[in-house]
Amino acid sequence: MISTTKTLEVTTPGRGFHEISQDLHHVVMESGVAVGLCHVFLRHTSASLLITENADPDVRRDLESFISKLAPDGDPAYSHSMEGPDDMPAHIRSVLTCSELTLPIRKGRLALGTWQGVYLWEHRVRPHHRRIDVTVIA
Amino acid sequence: MISTTKTLEVTTPGRGFHEISQDLHHVVMESGVAVGLCHVFLRHTSASLLITENADPDVRRDLESFISKLAPDGDPAYSHSMEGPDDMPAHIRSVLTCSELTLPIRKGRLALGTWQGVYLWEHRVRPHHRRIDVTVIA
Amino acid sequence: MISTTKTLEVTTPGRGFHEISQDLHHVVMESGVAVGLCHVFLRHTSASLLITENADPDVRRDLESFISKLAPDGDPAYSHSMEGPDDMPAHIRSVLTCSELTLPIRKGRLALGTWQGVYLWEHRVRPHHRRIDVTVIA
Repeated sequence: MISTTKTLEVTTPGRGFHEISQDLHHVVMESGVAVGLCHVFLRHTSASLLITENADPDVRRDLESFISKLAPDGDPAYSHSMEGPDDMPAHIRSVLTCSELTLPIRKGRLALGTWQGVYLWEHRVRPHHRRIDVTVIA
Repeated sequence: MISTTKTLEVTTPGRGFHEISQDLHHVVMESGVAVGLCHVFLRHTSASLLITENADPDVRRDLESFISKLAPDGDPAYSHSMEGPDDMPAHIRSVLTCSELTLPIRKGRLALGTWQGVYLWEHRVRPHHRRIDVTVIA
Repeated sequence: MISTTKTLEVTTPGRGFHEISQDLHHVVMESGVAVGLCHVFLRHTSASLLITENADPDVRRDLESFISKLAPDGDPAYSHSMEGPDDMPAHIRSVLTCSELTLPIRKGRLALGTWQGVYLWEHRVRPHHRRIDVTVIA
């Protein structure tokens, strides 16, 4: 049964990670749901939703560096470059990661593992306005 | 609450992208669900479900070209090649992308972003018959 | 509607694949749900949940070999190496694959395709204790 829906709006300062775990915790707590699922959907194809380690920021730095080498900006192999050298790599990064996540709710809380954080990963170099649709199921 | 289930059958002409957004829109509209989720599951391990940009076809061409280089057909490193040089790369592509997606329903419609399309990405070179199981939750 | 929740505990012997399809089948059968969805969530960022071919074990060997080359252990480019040379590659493998899956239930059974198996993919070299939270929706 759908309990709650909510839209989160995030303006990113450009490429990088923006943690949304707390925002999701708030939606879940406001819903009053004790046991259920929380679905998170990103309405864009040049950013990702990510679950990764929330402790050492070097993990995110290494992820960024890994993916930058895997799908480099401005690769002459890309045909799609209308919006600049970071346009096509952003779509590739989106396809190799996630646009949507479903997370368990237990005891009225988002039941992430101790070291798991949920992030919006902005792949475009310039700031972007991003919409995330959250749905709580009981 | 499960509202509707439906099986989509697609015969692909071989490697490439087949948009299924409209088929999913129809399932959602027929379900009569106003607010909910639509789960999409591909019953195969050598094709993927994909959310990506629906405007410029160059995006899909660049995705195909990127993944072909990342997991090349006929790589002598593969042990599993029973069904030909595109057999193991198809499994790798499937693992790096998605076999299942959950999409939000709002105001009786599939609530994709403006530039998001949902695709079946066939990874095998020859035509294949593919089954997709759709579940609508209200 | 949430029907059942269950936590699976798996101790892995180190890097490799551990099939959990049967464990999930049991949870679904015990739930008594005829038509629904089964959500599976891994509480860790250095292992993955994976749907892949369940017949030829060479497929899993080739997947392991592919990802080992893509994100090699001990790459000097990594800053995060507190827990050893397999620490950061494990996070990269997790990000390129899945931490959570939703699977359809039909006729009281997990409705996987004929060749699909669900695996816990351990990315750390040493044994680890892993928790998987399962939620059945009717």
